[in-house]
Amino acid sequence: MRFTIEQLTTFCVEACLEAGMTRAHSQITAEALVLTDSWGVHTHGTKNLRGYIRRIRAGGIRKEAQPLVAREGPAWALVDGDGAIGTVASHFAVNRAVQKAKASGIGFVGLKNSCHFGAAGVYACQAADQGLIGVAMSNDRPTVAVPGSRGSVLGSNPLAYAIPFQDHAHILLDIATSTVAGGKVFLAAARNEAIPEGWVIDENGKATTDPKLFPSHAALTPMAGHKGYGIAFLIETLSAIVTGASIGQHVVSWSFDDPSLPTNHGASFIAIDIGCLMEPDLFQARLRATAEEIRSAPRVPGVERIYLPGEKEWEHRQNVLQNGVDLPIESVISLQRLAEESKISLVSAD
Amino acid sequence: MRFTIEQLTTFCVEACLEAGMTRAHSQITAEALVLTDSWGVHTHGTKNLRGYIRRIRAGGIRKEAQPLVAREGPAWALVDGDGAIGTVASHFAVNRAVQKAKASGIGFVGLKNSCHFGAAGVYACQAADQGLIGVAMSNDRPTVAVPGSRGSVLGSNPLAYAIPFQDHAHILLDIATSTVAGGKVFLAAARNEAIPEGWVIDENGKATTDPKLFPSHAALTPMAGHKGYGIAFLIETLSAIVTGASIGQHVVSWSFDDPSLPTNHGASFIAIDIGCLMEPDLFQARLRATAEEIRSAPRVPGVERIYLPGEKEWEHRQNVLQNGVDLPIESVISLQRLAEESKISLVSAD
Repeated sequence: MRFTIEQLTTFCVEACLEAGMTRAHSQITAEALVLTDSWGVHTHGTKNLRGYIRRIRAGGIRKEAQPLVAREGPAWALVDGDGAIGTVASHFAVNRAVQKAKASGIGFVGLKNSCHFGAAGVYACQAADQGLIGVAMSNDRPTVAVPGSRGSVLGSNPLAYAIPFQDHAHILLDIATSTVAGGKVFLAAARNEAIPEGWVIDENGKATTDPKLFPSHAALTPMAGHKGYGIAFLIETLSAIVTGASIGQHVVSWSFDDPSLPTNHGASFIAIDIGCLMEPDLFQARLRATAEEIRSAPRVPGVERIYLPGEKEWEHRQNVLQNGVDLPIESVISLQRLAEESKISLVSAD
Repeated sequence: MRFTIEQLTTFCVEACLEAGMTRAHSQITAEALVLTDSWGVHTHGTKNLRGYIRRIRAGGIRKEAQPLVAREGPAWALVDGDGAIGTVASHFAVNRAVQKAKASGIGFVGLKNSCHFGAAGVYACQAADQGLIGVAMSNDRPTVAVPGSRGSVLGSNPLAYAIPFQDHAHILLDIATSTVAGGKVFLAAARNEAIPEGWVIDENGKATTDPKLFPSHAALTPMAGHKGYGIAFLIETLSAIVTGASIGQHVVSWSFDDPSLPTNHGASFIAIDIGCLMEPDLFQARLRATAEEIRSAPRVPGVERIYLPGEKEWEHRQNVLQNGVDLPIESVISLQRLAEESKISLVSAD
């Protein structure tokens, strides 16, 4: 089913308002989720709003939350998300990181008492939209094995960055530190498809192609083995160990666990003011030269283009802005159920 | 051949002094390379000193260099390495990052006019030794393909971090953003061994197990495909695009190219003062609890232990401190040649 950006945004705003969120918080949430869908990342887009609102109704996410700065210094802050929806708590934290970076060159903001924040790339782009390099990361309920374990030990702890690039959209990377994000396994399970070997291991630590074993009886594998494990450990440290958020098994699942419980996810955000180190026009010229060198590299036979990080997502969005977003069936069903539960209408472009 | 830490350090200091470096710079360099060997990372240890000194003698590395702060602000600095050996330029830059972090909570330092800095983990640990979380990264001469390319486009751009952990050694990760570091391929070539499929691609973009094709006729693959490519791009940006160091193909190879030329590698370093966000004892307790949770996770049958990031390297070092370091033949030959060229004696424990 196809929606214009406006239709999808309006629906999400109305659903958030109906759940009792302020208009400002509803707008932030709708824009984050629709931006994600517009990149083609439907596992982290509007599909998840129903789950967030279920937690709002049950009390696990506080609709009246007002994130606040718990402690701060010249280039850092610790933000207490006040149990807000992850989009709102993270948006607040990124704004503070940007302020710190503008004042001091770099800003580091840790966030506690948040929830699942969706796509990390949204928050990296929030900083890049203001001309800064943005980095975003979060911990999550464990779904990923570590080298030698046969069960989940750490979350798929996502990492994203965005670099403002004048001529084009931001250079953008948004990855799980597992081989693939859990959402891709859920999607395969919903579609009764097998998954490639290497994505998950079963309870005995053996590779399996059955997505339905996940997450109760299987774990995701870490990206590039010990490398992904190590990066996930750093993300756990910066997002949770040092912020006071819940760690590892103590994070409550935003989608599976009792929705009346706060999940207490942690996150952290870094913003870097490019202009401190280099005159911005010169930086852009050097970035452009680098991009051209990469794009013009000799290609493997049959490959038509070499893409910059994020370029595919931005081209997807360009198409969406012109033609609307064609949501997969899982997203449509979730939105339809949310519409029924919220007694609001879901208007599509079809 | 086996050496005590002291024997190896003394030899390296003497070789650096003989090449005209100051005693302070010689000591910094020796300690960095010997620390690396003590972790068992011989591809980045004392084996490379001969190559660095060859560049010093030819003028590509300036023995009299004095790195300086070119620009700085409350939480950041741009360091001009003045053409110094990478160990010295990086040591200077990390110290500045630590100062900035102690003053402002976080410090970001970019470095230009440097050379190959060896193992990134050395500089991450330099910050962790002072109680801060340290992050280190560098660009390098391209040896790695990007998705779709059939030649080298970016360097193996290493990333390291270290988190101070009271009860144990620092949590430590030090990785190339390629599937494996180039040094492992060179080692296989020197030993006439085949390499596993997936490490490199040949000039047609096809996987090959012949290490001798690298680097002239083969490229390393990026770690986890587009994920490693994306991370390497961020490292290129923070180490070179924004610092003024050479980018991509413009970096001079420290080991293959004319040794009279400056390589102009870039690097960047981040230090984070944990105590800003959380009382250090509480941080340590939370880190300890996380470590215990990971270590006690159910294991794959046949796996005896789950390791924390860096734990194997520190256990290797513990053994080295007691029994000396058993260097592989490639390192021994390199040191023996350096001894001859420098007219100093190489004393071993054997």
